[in-house]
Amino acid sequence: MSAFLERLDTACETNESLLCVGLDPDLAQMPISDVAAFNKAIVDATRDLVCAYKPNLAFYEALGLEGLRALEQTIQHIRNVAPGVVLIGDAKRGDIGNTAEAYARAMFDVWGFDATTVNPYGGQDAVQPFLDYRDRGVIIWCRSSNPGAGEIQNPVIVPPDGTESRPLYEWVAVRANIWNDAGNVALVVGATYPDELERVRELCPEMPILIPGVGAQEGVLEKSVLSGT
Amino acid sequence: MSAFLERLDTACETNESLLCVGLDPDLAQMPISDVAAFNKAIVDATRDLVCAYKPNLAFYEALGLEGLRALEQTIQHIRNVAPGVVLIGDAKRGDIGNTAEAYARAMFDVWGFDATTVNPYGGQDAVQPFLDYRDRGVIIWCRSSNPGAGEIQNPVIVPPDGTESRPLYEWVAVRANIWNDAGNVALVVGATYPDELERVRELCPEMPILIPGVGAQEGVLEKSVLSGT
Repeated sequence: MSAFLERLDTACETNESLLCVGLDPDLAQMPISDVAAFNKAIVDATRDLVCAYKPNLAFYEALGLEGLRALEQTIQHIRNVAPGVVLIGDAKRGDIGNTAEAYARAMFDVWGFDATTVNPYGGQDAVQPFLDYRDRGVIIWCRSSNPGAGEIQNPVIVPPDGTESRPLYEWVAVRANIWNDAGNVALVVGATYPDELERVRELCPEMPILIPGVGAQEGVLEKSVLSGT
Repeated sequence: MSAFLERLDTACETNESLLCVGLDPDLAQMPISDVAAFNKAIVDATRDLVCAYKPNLAFYEALGLEGLRALEQTIQHIRNVAPGVVLIGDAKRGDIGNTAEAYARAMFDVWGFDATTVNPYGGQDAVQPFLDYRDRGVIIWCRSSNPGAGEIQNPVIVPPDGTESRPLYEWVAVRANIWNDAGNVALVVGATYPDELERVRELCPEMPILIPGVGAQEGVLEKSVLSGT
């Protein structure tokens, strides 16, 4: 079992939780404008109830360097008060080899995340630099939770390996199994599409699945948990 | 014609150039360790020879906040000495709606890029927040230049709109035409795949195409220019 899976399992067991809390600070929806203080309050209130925190880098980048400093403070605080909780950097990076190497360094060495979300569009060699951090988690964006995801992710493809035709997101799940040499791969499948989630679970019976979309996006919690089991 | 296309056309005409120079500082390959000074030297030597500069955010993020400050200085310098040249932020962001909104703010409002590369995997509603900046360019990552790109981008799909089956990257080009309501969409197609480039040019006869891969990746310049014409 990879160090990432062990860390995730321990976090789930210690806090008896499958809950990952997103930290996506949107000033327009916050009661205070201090991002680090806002996140600190959320972390302090939930640190024994979650298995993971997931800051979404977009919301920090949108605030410029000041936002990234708040991300730094947030990570430091989580490491201080919840050292056993998994820290996922939600960045969905994806690019060719040497650029992916730089992104992997940024996510794992600079920010120090335990895992990061990755976009599969570039294929295996674009994901490999992340996979090569064998003690970290690489969470492939498989089937996204947004209303229009199906435009690209759902057309049926004819696999070049001669296997049965299937929607593109299923092909990504099939390939993710192949990319999982180090046992550090996981998937993102939106809670807004429980049928797709069930299908992905069949294809990847053992893989952790990050299921966003419960909450503002109105994904169904109970059905998602059952479909993902 | 969109403000982005006008800006690009003017830059190409003024400098009589179709060349976009990447600014991807990799300390291991640089003679000095000062990223801003390194970029400044490149810009000063090429500013009348290019139509665009393209900093790749990965290489700055890999250097932490200090790297991002060097990016800030680089952008400032380009705006000072080459105000007519197009500034492309190569970030290949892609995520669902509200996250894409935050990324678009980061790329266009915070960094002030004239255009940015975007990943199409999330479909139109994940690209729309970028498109809504109607005076900026949105350059869709269509067919990437890396060796393994075909694993995801080349399988033949059955389009849900009943049109002929085609490789996924062609489907992305077809959709990019539909997303191009404001005339501010462009495409990325690697110089390493001139046949695919020719096919994309047939599908999108008027769209600007950013063609990376000439240089270290050994894409063929002359054939790329001819295939993309």
